[in-house]
Amino acid sequence: MVGMQGLDLEAAKQLAIGMIPFIERTGVELLELEPGRLKAKMPFEPNINHIGTMYAGALYTLAEFPGGVVFFSIFDVTKYYPIIREQTIRFLRPATTDVTIDVAITQEEVDRISREIDEHGKANWTWEVELVDANGEVVATSTNHYQGRAHG
Amino acid sequence: MVGMQGLDLEAAKQLAIGMIPFIERTGVELLELEPGRLKAKMPFEPNINHIGTMYAGALYTLAEFPGGVVFFSIFDVTKYYPIIREQTIRFLRPATTDVTIDVAITQEEVDRISREIDEHGKANWTWEVELVDANGEVVATSTNHYQGRAHG
Repeated sequence: MVGMQGLDLEAAKQLAIGMIPFIERTGVELLELEPGRLKAKMPFEPNINHIGTMYAGALYTLAEFPGGVVFFSIFDVTKYYPIIREQTIRFLRPATTDVTIDVAITQEEVDRISREIDEHGKANWTWEVELVDANGEVVATSTNHYQGRAHG
Repeated sequence: MVGMQGLDLEAAKQLAIGMIPFIERTGVELLELEPGRLKAKMPFEPNINHIGTMYAGALYTLAEFPGGVVFFSIFDVTKYYPIIREQTIRFLRPATTDVTIDVAITQEEVDRISREIDEHGKANWTWEVELVDANGEVVATSTNHYQGRAHG
């Protein structure tokens, strides 16, 4: 797979969401994507649970999938790939609307991780993610532990 | 919603999986269900990711949804309902087959939780869950923090 640098949003959306059917089935939408940053929305309706709130697995997916997409938007993916090692999600209040996230990684962090992978074959980083409902309330937070690795 | 005591496996499956479309879309199957215990299988094929392993969100869902189902199988659901408060999932190795879980709660723990809800309106419990592939390897573990609450 190639990187997303230079792709327009529609093409990136195809690549990012279309290649994992599980994610596509949630109806999640990429709202904004630039190198190192992503904004996405998980729609309420198809992800409702039996008590009329957004199912935990949909919130989990919204918190998880941007890690890979942001990685592909800014890292040299001819050399590196990411995996998720561990994730803790905390449910703070029921979500009864669409939920969005807006996550970013700095160029400094990208450089540090790339350098460490070059030297050691792998590098870890952690993301704190907030999931926000349509009223601006944080419905959940997630701590994501990723690892970048060298191909081959 | 009513409890599952006395329901056969097919009826319970309808109730447990059919009522949350997100879970139904994963194709997860209830293999065994008895009061306080559940065995389920997440099929590989519909949950594959872009690198040919099971997507993290499918593993998360397999680890999460049994909590509610087991709750409804053994607690007095005319009085109590469960929520998930926090969940940590650790990915130990890529899953390249169907993945199963087999989880249970003891009657002693059910009694303790019910008593605490009666006294305080709520009670917490934690589950350690292992996700096992077709070769018997643990591909992920999950620590699930639930809370039971009194209706109304």
